[in-house]
Amino acid sequence: MLERFKVPERDRVYVAEAHVRAATEGIFRHSGISPEEAASSTDVLIKNDLRGVESHGVSNGLRRYVAEYSANKLNPTPEFKIERETKTTMTVDADGALGIHVGPWAMQQAIDKAKEFGMAAVAVKNSGHLAGCGYYAMMAAEQGMIGHCMTAGGSHQTVPPFGSKPVMGTNPIAWAAPARNMPPFLFDVATTQVANNKIGLARRIGADLEGGWITDLDGEPILDQIQPPDTGDYYLLHIGGTRENGSHKGFGLALMNEIICNELSGYGPGPVHGTPGGHFFQAYDIEAFTDIEKFKDDMDDLLKHIAEVPPTKEFDRVLYAGLMEDEDEKKRLKDGIPYHREVVEWFESYCAEAGIECNLR
Amino acid sequence: MLERFKVPERDRVYVAEAHVRAATEGIFRHSGISPEEAASSTDVLIKNDLRGVESHGVSNGLRRYVAEYSANKLNPTPEFKIERETKTTMTVDADGALGIHVGPWAMQQAIDKAKEFGMAAVAVKNSGHLAGCGYYAMMAAEQGMIGHCMTAGGSHQTVPPFGSKPVMGTNPIAWAAPARNMPPFLFDVATTQVANNKIGLARRIGADLEGGWITDLDGEPILDQIQPPDTGDYYLLHIGGTRENGSHKGFGLALMNEIICNELSGYGPGPVHGTPGGHFFQAYDIEAFTDIEKFKDDMDDLLKHIAEVPPTKEFDRVLYAGLMEDEDEKKRLKDGIPYHREVVEWFESYCAEAGIECNLR
Repeated sequence: MLERFKVPERDRVYVAEAHVRAATEGIFRHSGISPEEAASSTDVLIKNDLRGVESHGVSNGLRRYVAEYSANKLNPTPEFKIERETKTTMTVDADGALGIHVGPWAMQQAIDKAKEFGMAAVAVKNSGHLAGCGYYAMMAAEQGMIGHCMTAGGSHQTVPPFGSKPVMGTNPIAWAAPARNMPPFLFDVATTQVANNKIGLARRIGADLEGGWITDLDGEPILDQIQPPDTGDYYLLHIGGTRENGSHKGFGLALMNEIICNELSGYGPGPVHGTPGGHFFQAYDIEAFTDIEKFKDDMDDLLKHIAEVPPTKEFDRVLYAGLMEDEDEKKRLKDGIPYHREVVEWFESYCAEAGIECNLR
Repeated sequence: MLERFKVPERDRVYVAEAHVRAATEGIFRHSGISPEEAASSTDVLIKNDLRGVESHGVSNGLRRYVAEYSANKLNPTPEFKIERETKTTMTVDADGALGIHVGPWAMQQAIDKAKEFGMAAVAVKNSGHLAGCGYYAMMAAEQGMIGHCMTAGGSHQTVPPFGSKPVMGTNPIAWAAPARNMPPFLFDVATTQVANNKIGLARRIGADLEGGWITDLDGEPILDQIQPPDTGDYYLLHIGGTRENGSHKGFGLALMNEIICNELSGYGPGPVHGTPGGHFFQAYDIEAFTDIEKFKDDMDDLLKHIAEVPPTKEFDRVLYAGLMEDEDEKKRLKDGIPYHREVVEWFESYCAEAGIECNLR
């Protein structure tokens, strides 16, 4: 994550992982979710926070989810309905479950099928926010597979190249693959210049946005560095930013995501219906293609080679996706997770009101 | 394709599709390839040219392939060896075949397996240039599937963000999906700002390169608009260009491609060994996930919605990947394919020398 998105030192409260995990589980249980499922939902958010993916941890997500449960927009006790199933595929209606609720279950279904048949995928519709895709891809990597996950996100947030009206969401994508000793590959990004959550994060911590990240409400790219506008006063640009700089590539990735998450799942086109998006979870069993021990050795050689590329003179080192996330996780497990004090205050006030045990300091 | 990459009107020779196809097949047969396989190899290049993907048609590729066959760097009569196979996966040693030789066969294997088991993928190693990935993805779309193809390309062409030395190739990716009446989705791009072939194309037609597309030999991004440097005097930047503009996303995609094409295939890390890359062909049977008739209707609604987004004031219309390719194909089937006269002259002189029938004008 770019430095500008990190919580400034003066506003940080370091919270032990176990404490924020316990408080978050308590909040989910209070929303009516079973203890086991509250724990698996919580794990998604806490792992994101541990890995430095603050934009998809408790800070941005939790109060929104709680509000959606309390307004009956999410179903805390869903029954997942399998609409179609083959040896390698499954299409699931999540019955209004939050994405982080159905996601770990759906990814495990794909992994189990891939173990038997080589590869498999599960498409999920009628479900809420997934909190990024990296967590699910990593579930597969932790079980000897290559994992792939996408979610079509919301609609009407991003404008296509040359367009004046928003069409899709940030449509994030992730892939993960294991190595032996090197930190695993974990590539987890929005197909926009920045995730929408990062705009809120930048607002909270007073950071500027780079030119070419967003448009005005006529779809004209804003090319100057600016303070984050308010929600509703901007649209997002796809990876690349402008057409000359390749935004058609980011847009094409986002559209591939939309087609697989919404059309292949049978959910129907998000841009047309203005619906939140479906999710897609896929696993490739490495052993079905090659010897997994050789694969892990090759991954170590590859990732070490990249991390050892000499940097250009202004920079310290070269990174690959997953390297810093792994370092963050180790550091945060030891030192605690740095949250903005305003987030900790929200936890404390919500828990006090709801009678949930909460001990974050 | 950006206007700057198109052959200038004054240098164009319009060649009927059947004529360039016949000459290309003759050239492949002359290199020792069987008539049937010469025809399927040719189809890849001609379809690329028809779809406006000049960078991966006969202009840039053919004389290189002919030279590689004649130097015994490519095997015109390969025996594909299946190294590992499951119900949904296959790992193939292509025995030194050109990519466009093994590619159509490998994609069809994936399609056939997906028809039976829902989804499937074929990983190929020990093979030459694939000429982009779009053709193969479209093979699946034409058979009621979503197609996905990648090739790890060459090595040592692109520098990672913050890096001073090149690591990977342009690592292109493609996905395709059918619609009913709208032109199909066909997303086919390099994970670099521009495909390397486009640098040669720009040189041939005297076009400038945009800032942020390439680096100097120290890996420093060149941010000014410049004339294309000579081969060997530059490295390519990943999608995004600079880190602030998201080049870590292009780099992550390229690395995902490397991992799946080279590590999952058992070929081994291209950046370490300096080898040309493996290929990956995948098909998802739409019917395994949802009703294909509904899928096609939803695709029409989606793609029509996007093509009808009102453009910003400087532009005529909004495009999705595959729309212009389809229009180009219809136009070029009628009017002929516009080649640079220098390309036509090469055909004529090569064919005259080799005694191959050639009637391009």
